[in-house]
Amino acid sequence: MKICVLPGDGIGPEIMDQTLRVLEALRGDGVNFEAEFALVGGAAVDATGSPLPEATVKLADEADALLLGAVGGPKWDNYPRDQRPERGLLGIRKQLELFANLRPAILYPELANASSLKPEIVSGLDILIVRELTGDIYFGQPRGIREENGERVGFNTMIYSESEIRRIGKVAFEAARKRDKKLCSVDKMNVLETTQLWRDVMIELSADYPDVELSHMLVDNAAMQLVRAPKQFDVMVTGNMFGDILSDEASMLTGSIGMLPSASLNAAGKGMYEPSHGSAPDIAGKDIANPLATMLSAAMMLRYSFNLETQAARIETAVKKVLAAGYRTGDIYEPGTRRVGTKEMGDAVIAAL
Amino acid sequence: MKICVLPGDGIGPEIMDQTLRVLEALRGDGVNFEAEFALVGGAAVDATGSPLPEATVKLADEADALLLGAVGGPKWDNYPRDQRPERGLLGIRKQLELFANLRPAILYPELANASSLKPEIVSGLDILIVRELTGDIYFGQPRGIREENGERVGFNTMIYSESEIRRIGKVAFEAARKRDKKLCSVDKMNVLETTQLWRDVMIELSADYPDVELSHMLVDNAAMQLVRAPKQFDVMVTGNMFGDILSDEASMLTGSIGMLPSASLNAAGKGMYEPSHGSAPDIAGKDIANPLATMLSAAMMLRYSFNLETQAARIETAVKKVLAAGYRTGDIYEPGTRRVGTKEMGDAVIAAL
Ligand SMILES: [Mg+2]
Ligand SMILES: [Mg+2]
Repeated sequence: MKICVLPGDGIGPEIMDQTLRVLEALRGDGVNFEAEFALVGGAAVDATGSPLPEATVKLADEADALLLGAVGGPKWDNYPRDQRPERGLLGIRKQLELFANLRPAILYPELANASSLKPEIVSGLDILIVRELTGDIYFGQPRGIREENGERVGFNTMIYSESEIRRIGKVAFEAARKRDKKLCSVDKMNVLETTQLWRDVMIELSADYPDVELSHMLVDNAAMQLVRAPKQFDVMVTGNMFGDILSDEASMLTGSIGMLPSASLNAAGKGMYEPSHGSAPDIAGKDIANPLATMLSAAMMLRYSFNLETQAARIETAVKKVLAAGYRTGDIYEPGTRRVGTKEMGDAVIAAL
Repeated sequence: MKICVLPGDGIGPEIMDQTLRVLEALRGDGVNFEAEFALVGGAAVDATGSPLPEATVKLADEADALLLGAVGGPKWDNYPRDQRPERGLLGIRKQLELFANLRPAILYPELANASSLKPEIVSGLDILIVRELTGDIYFGQPRGIREENGERVGFNTMIYSESEIRRIGKVAFEAARKRDKKLCSVDKMNVLETTQLWRDVMIELSADYPDVELSHMLVDNAAMQLVRAPKQFDVMVTGNMFGDILSDEASMLTGSIGMLPSASLNAAGKGMYEPSHGSAPDIAGKDIANPLATMLSAAMMLRYSFNLETQAARIETAVKKVLAAGYRTGDIYEPGTRRVGTKEMGDAVIAAL
């Protein structure tokens, strides 16, 4: 297990430190990894002039999985477009063909107060949104703004091929198999031919997964149902654009984005794992950042890239335990709980493993 | 004021009856209307074989505004596509070029319990989503499913011209002027050229509305912010597809779709007004349907087609009063309130006018 570790910018390095300690603590339990550190984002720009140096590309290619902290910060906001920290991530996604974005929306009962929804609607929420990440209208050609009859006209192309739909569908069916075996595919088949094909391919694919219950929902209804009764869902799969909207909506249901991990996978199961939150430069280096989303990202890595389900679950259970025991970093603190720093939170999770 | 009245199917006729009684009660206050009844939807199919008979098209053309109950029902579900009740509405929209869909999401404090969100987050919510209704990817060409390299490829075209964006923008700025003078335009300009043009045109247009504060938000963030803090919004304007998703999400925030009116307008301010709910065939004819959304649609008609702001507000205030007095139809009933039928609710609103 060769892991390319990308601490990145802002709070990235300190949340990564604690996450590596957790992985280290699992060595006795078959997590025999080798960590190689590489530069990405603003830190890479500062050191080499590029947000994705050649050495990082090489290590990313050789590694079995990538674990990322976070990138970006005001320091690099006005740099030229090809030196923006985010370009480093886009470059890795492209290089490794990471087409499957897995975005869990999980709300631990202890944190239910943080949600804008009523506790009984969201407490215990555990859904996984699988978003296609490299196709759809965000990348479709032709696109642009042209002159027509003396006025400007903007246009973009939504497009998906059968094989693109099939490969993301497989990831979603496999993920559903590892969970509650319920997959909801989201489309707009009553209006868009692209998503009619999407639905057709999902139905064809379902023949290979008789143990997974496939359902379909129109995107506008899905946006409603996530608000009305989000716990009805297990795994949802959808295209890049609908997935962009719905995964963000779903994550906000939890009210605590600082807790959410994510993964981007390719066809070989190789993936980049990272917290959904940003680099929070304002609190960097103060030992107050929440490292749990990065630890949960590492758990996803064990599950999806290394098939170490038991060890992944050990991390997740340890996180649940420390929350139940009242440990909170500042972002999720409530009166009556125990406020701890980044390193203390690491200690608590390791103790709970 | 010539109003084309379309009772439609299911509960349509009974909720329309009560709404016309309310309008009748406002005659003394300058609401001097002439009502012409016409057939649409399933009722029209039964009587004439078409969901949009010629006589209805003629009346719709001649009228200053249209007031609709609801269409559809299981009886017509398996009819051929051109005899489906919904085709009647699509036909009217096309015939009258109703390109601006106005969808309020309002939550009266008395009904805050119905929402899946915490009362403090949604109670008193009052936002208006302006959705473009005749363009965008739902109508764009080219579109279809073709064979390419031995596999199927689905494709659709998102497209907006400057003039299409400008006319919906105007409706939204005018609507904001009648409200809190805050307009949030929703796009995905960082990825889609079509919506880059959308944002550019909104900014150009804002020069004509110096009294309205224009802001912009990316669609994925808008989907999040509607969940996190919906009361930050006054008027939102967006394209057909994003509007489809966001207006449904916003309506579900209220938890009581039976209360929500809607309007579809053309460039001349002529419009079709209708409740957001369906025809509820299961409770049709039982005098238990909720007529309030239709009455609130009539209020929108007075405001947007006839510029009768005071009279529109009178209906809205009367609805607030009957809710405060505890009157509830079955769909919004809670213990401790007074359950009434459709006609009784009409009596109560008229008494409160
Ligand atoms: Mg997003
Ligand atoms: Mg819709």
